[in-house]
Amino acid sequence: MAISTGLTRALNIRHPIMLAPMDLVADARLALAVSRAGGFGMVGGGYGEEAWLTRQLDGVGEERIGVGFITWSLAKNPRLLDLVLERCPPAVMLSFGEVRPFAEKIKKTGALLVCQIQTLAQARDALANGADILVAQGAEAGGHGVARGAFPLVPAVADLAPHAIVVAAGGIADGRGLAAALMLGAEGVLMGTRFYVSQEAASHPDAKAAVQRATGDRTIRGRIFDIARKNIWPEPFTGRVLCNRFSDEWAGREAELLRRQEEVSTLYAEARTKFDFDTAAVIAGEVADLISDIPPAGEIVERMAAEAAELLAGARDRYRIAP
Amino acid sequence: MAISTGLTRALNIRHPIMLAPMDLVADARLALAVSRAGGFGMVGGGYGEEAWLTRQLDGVGEERIGVGFITWSLAKNPRLLDLVLERCPPAVMLSFGEVRPFAEKIKKTGALLVCQIQTLAQARDALANGADILVAQGAEAGGHGVARGAFPLVPAVADLAPHAIVVAAGGIADGRGLAAALMLGAEGVLMGTRFYVSQEAASHPDAKAAVQRATGDRTIRGRIFDIARKNIWPEPFTGRVLCNRFSDEWAGREAELLRRQEEVSTLYAEARTKFDFDTAAVIAGEVADLISDIPPAGEIVERMAAEAAELLAGARDRYRIAP
Repeated sequence: MAISTGLTRALNIRHPIMLAPMDLVADARLALAVSRAGGFGMVGGGYGEEAWLTRQLDGVGEERIGVGFITWSLAKNPRLLDLVLERCPPAVMLSFGEVRPFAEKIKKTGALLVCQIQTLAQARDALANGADILVAQGAEAGGHGVARGAFPLVPAVADLAPHAIVVAAGGIADGRGLAAALMLGAEGVLMGTRFYVSQEAASHPDAKAAVQRATGDRTIRGRIFDIARKNIWPEPFTGRVLCNRFSDEWAGREAELLRRQEEVSTLYAEARTKFDFDTAAVIAGEVADLISDIPPAGEIVERMAAEAAELLAGARDRYRIAP
Repeated sequence: MAISTGLTRALNIRHPIMLAPMDLVADARLALAVSRAGGFGMVGGGYGEEAWLTRQLDGVGEERIGVGFITWSLAKNPRLLDLVLERCPPAVMLSFGEVRPFAEKIKKTGALLVCQIQTLAQARDALANGADILVAQGAEAGGHGVARGAFPLVPAVADLAPHAIVVAAGGIADGRGLAAALMLGAEGVLMGTRFYVSQEAASHPDAKAAVQRATGDRTIRGRIFDIARKNIWPEPFTGRVLCNRFSDEWAGREAELLRRQEEVSTLYAEARTKFDFDTAAVIAGEVADLISDIPPAGEIVERMAAEAAELLAGARDRYRIAP
């Protein structure tokens, strides 16, 4: 069963499911797996490792794959966008920063402009700059974000943007989440954590296993890991990760961590090299509760779409809705 | 159109919509309006003003109305529960505290035990103590709560509790939210903020107008208002309110506010008396974006149920879902 929405029609895809362009994790292999199953794969432009990005773009070849950027990071090295636009991707996504400097250039190539937003104010700005697709990301999401919950944010963005396509992100990992997102007024979903725990994801096996074991009760949004890896994001962005020994030690003591940044960051970098996830962060969202296996990404897309279609198509009977 | 779920059957109501038992705001008048429209009204036991509570219980008479308690506050004055159970309400709700001391007594009377939870750990505890209905409340909710988003919390609680009835709370104000909650695995919703802005609600007219005008971008979860009103809740509970001049001044400066509590609390109490909402908090959730009118509570119930029924019943056609 397939679900047809404004998003599937705009991107010419079979299922309204997008891969979050996770830094280093969303590579050509994962993006291809999502797109080939009927979703929309996106490569993560991340912090702008040009050689890595070029390899991924070569890897996706002629397939319909998008590219997503961390906008404030792209602003430091804007030629990465040219590198991407040369390949004529069907969509380019901007998250976490000012849309205006890049919007026109992207739209001129015919690519759809996808803007991830976390507040209504950001949504308004993205629309004013021509966003075709607004990804409304709730704070339950893994990785960077802001503070608002997806449940009330998605319908508020839908009300604001009757002519744009709204996609829900944050807290979604199965067909229930997709069906719920559509009911809230979205036309699809974007997922990071669920795809992070897939066979093709470039995440470390121990990190995948940690998400599988984790409960959403034990995730934390903040800055301590960014401080420890010397990669402090601009306001208002914070990051959600699984709680671990390091976060238990440092949460609420950001000022002290900043004072001791040199010393701690050396240890932290070493932990990352060794994949020691008692110290190094595993980037994942509250949705960890719903993740108990490590399937191929294509299977995630297909079973999610089938589950959502069944829930939606069966609702009239299930709830005995009579006119 | 009506939606039949486990919740409507368990409570013998027409629409799967519950009134949050808001302290002082959810009085007999508001609870009756919700129940008479086919939802489930609950009176707020709040901080235990016995005379007030008795008046409300007298006011609801023989109608099927529930009562909800702030559990840690009830523990200080447990005879309030006896007062309520004498009236044989169909359901009693416990939020924010230890369920065990009260669970058996409530269930013995035949009342359904409704437990509001904000984490999976709390949900497990409530189930172990015999909860019949679990209200999974997301942090986007107005008033007190914890940290998790409703979107991933609701399905995780549903997975945990196949034999209990799950109700979603936090971020819900219209039929889209109700339909989404059902897709996530809930069997109904509980709402505070939406009913706070209804004709029957005992909230101040200026507070209702403030929610109408507000954006969800400008709400804040924290402790500053509890510090200012000398009503500090136990961990891990914080409260969400509309941002105002007072929160703009004090957010992030809790330690200083605590040091100056005596002085500030006097001014704060005065502002509450004068309904000066530049200082006194208006308790509301992120869902403020979705609230633009002040209808009768019954109309809220009816139009929400109709909108959700239409969304659900029409999903198969809308999304062109073919087997």
